[in-house]
Amino acid sequence: MAPIAIQETVDVAPLKKRADAESATEETGEGIRLSARSGTYTKQTSGAAPTYIQANLIILPSKYASDFRILCRRNPVPCPLLAESAAVGSWDALRSWIPGVEGQKIAANVDLRHDCPRYMVYENGHLKTSHCLNVENEWTEDHVCFVIGCSFSFETALAAAGLMPAHTAQARNVSMYRTSLPLCPAGVFKNSTYIVSMRPYRRRDVEKVRDITRPYVATHGEPIDWGWEAVTRLGIKDISRPDYGEAPVNADGTNLVQGDGIGDEELVPVFWGCGVTPQEAVQRASLEGTVFGHAPGYMLVLDVRDWDILQA
Amino acid sequence: MAPIAIQETVDVAPLKKRADAESATEETGEGIRLSARSGTYTKQTSGAAPTYIQANLIILPSKYASDFRILCRRNPVPCPLLAESAAVGSWDALRSWIPGVEGQKIAANVDLRHDCPRYMVYENGHLKTSHCLNVENEWTEDHVCFVIGCSFSFETALAAAGLMPAHTAQARNVSMYRTSLPLCPAGVFKNSTYIVSMRPYRRRDVEKVRDITRPYVATHGEPIDWGWEAVTRLGIKDISRPDYGEAPVNADGTNLVQGDGIGDEELVPVFWGCGVTPQEAVQRASLEGTVFGHAPGYMLVLDVRDWDILQA
Repeated sequence: MAPIAIQETVDVAPLKKRADAESATEETGEGIRLSARSGTYTKQTSGAAPTYIQANLIILPSKYASDFRILCRRNPVPCPLLAESAAVGSWDALRSWIPGVEGQKIAANVDLRHDCPRYMVYENGHLKTSHCLNVENEWTEDHVCFVIGCSFSFETALAAAGLMPAHTAQARNVSMYRTSLPLCPAGVFKNSTYIVSMRPYRRRDVEKVRDITRPYVATHGEPIDWGWEAVTRLGIKDISRPDYGEAPVNADGTNLVQGDGIGDEELVPVFWGCGVTPQEAVQRASLEGTVFGHAPGYMLVLDVRDWDILQA
Repeated sequence: MAPIAIQETVDVAPLKKRADAESATEETGEGIRLSARSGTYTKQTSGAAPTYIQANLIILPSKYASDFRILCRRNPVPCPLLAESAAVGSWDALRSWIPGVEGQKIAANVDLRHDCPRYMVYENGHLKTSHCLNVENEWTEDHVCFVIGCSFSFETALAAAGLMPAHTAQARNVSMYRTSLPLCPAGVFKNSTYIVSMRPYRRRDVEKVRDITRPYVATHGEPIDWGWEAVTRLGIKDISRPDYGEAPVNADGTNLVQGDGIGDEELVPVFWGCGVTPQEAVQRASLEGTVFGHAPGYMLVLDVRDWDILQA
């Protein structure tokens, strides 16, 4: 096996220290999963079990698994594949796609049919069931589950550096936009585009924001574009009307508008690859059969921690 | 280490059989490298040692290595990173980035300063030396070499399937174009765009061409776009005037023009991510110090074979 070195120079001590102080009182990834499995944890996972990585799930008939795996491999920024079912039909074991991290370490005690607080089910491309508590009846021996990174990881790091995203400060959902930026196609998955999440920052902070999020390569990494010019470049029609999530606000709760501040003080939109991208790609591909995944915001919380997936 | 399964279902038997038949008479990757090292092999490597993977080299001061590695990881289709120097300053050993393939297997007996037939040297962003036979004097203890996949691998597979690229049939260089499609930025590497290579095919053959090249994920994989509409989508101004390589021709040597054939018989351009992309990204980043690499077409020929990097 290749000697793929990671975790070289990133300073995660502040994050680890914070987690150690909290671990006695706050929940773990396994704790959230077990509570979701028993049906007692049914709410969103935002802010739950800090520093435990949260993930998007996409569960497909096996005939689409190879194309989907290649889609993720070709588009790792919006579709960072962390793991998948250890075998076709397997819902209790993962094989890892994070270099140097075993599937067991990603989530040891796991039931992919129950461990998200809520799920969505699609039948032949149409929504069949919304926000159900489990997918035990839908799961077949032919399904493969894909586990995809989410941006909660780097949001924790930004907050720890004094750069808390405005939507977090305002307890709102992040703003997400469909763009005209094409994904590299893979088999049945074609004609899809990037979905991006947006967080506003002062222009003077953009390089710091880039530096902080860069090592999080397995959870979208650094921004893909920034500044008001990026809105046009990405083909976003109206920044005030996101396609997913809530309308963008500043840290003080006022609406984000162009022209707030001048020069380095200007507030500008900063865009990241977003985990909704693979979900839209799956929907656009009009797959046959039953496809399901977590309900947005009701993520799978893993055992693996932020610092296990950092890359320098 | 993660149990990353590859080479699952791709049928490489025809390629292997062809290689076995040739191995007694034709050169190996090591053979080309040793001849280049001694200064006796000084020509282009196109067509040399079939099924041995050929690679682009980019050699940078170590302070840029982390950003460049992340650039490749974020943009694996145009920048498929196969390996890098085993350590900073190391020119005789590689560490692999191909899951399941050791650095030793990629190229065991290697001298990264001598083993390309020709090199290019840039100083503070400007060309200093063109087509020199080695870079022994330029290499320092602070340099890191990156080894990036090239499309010769899938061209062999296309030819084996009766879909020989037109430029190969005409013994010309492939046509390459600068596009408006942005790379995902990484540190100092920003504001760069995809360079694409183009091979014309009948519309009826496009899906077959996609299927054949899809498993070559470590050497650009399947096309990123195709059809005449793709020319506009990619921001290519004039298909008859490539930015690199030679003007595009049909298999019979006539110029490629829109309107040759109708319906499924129409000849359409098919575009792939191209290994010139990381070279342009490095040039656009205006790096300080001495940067060097192979001269275009004078590649590093590896020990690893096409079927070692296929992915299903």
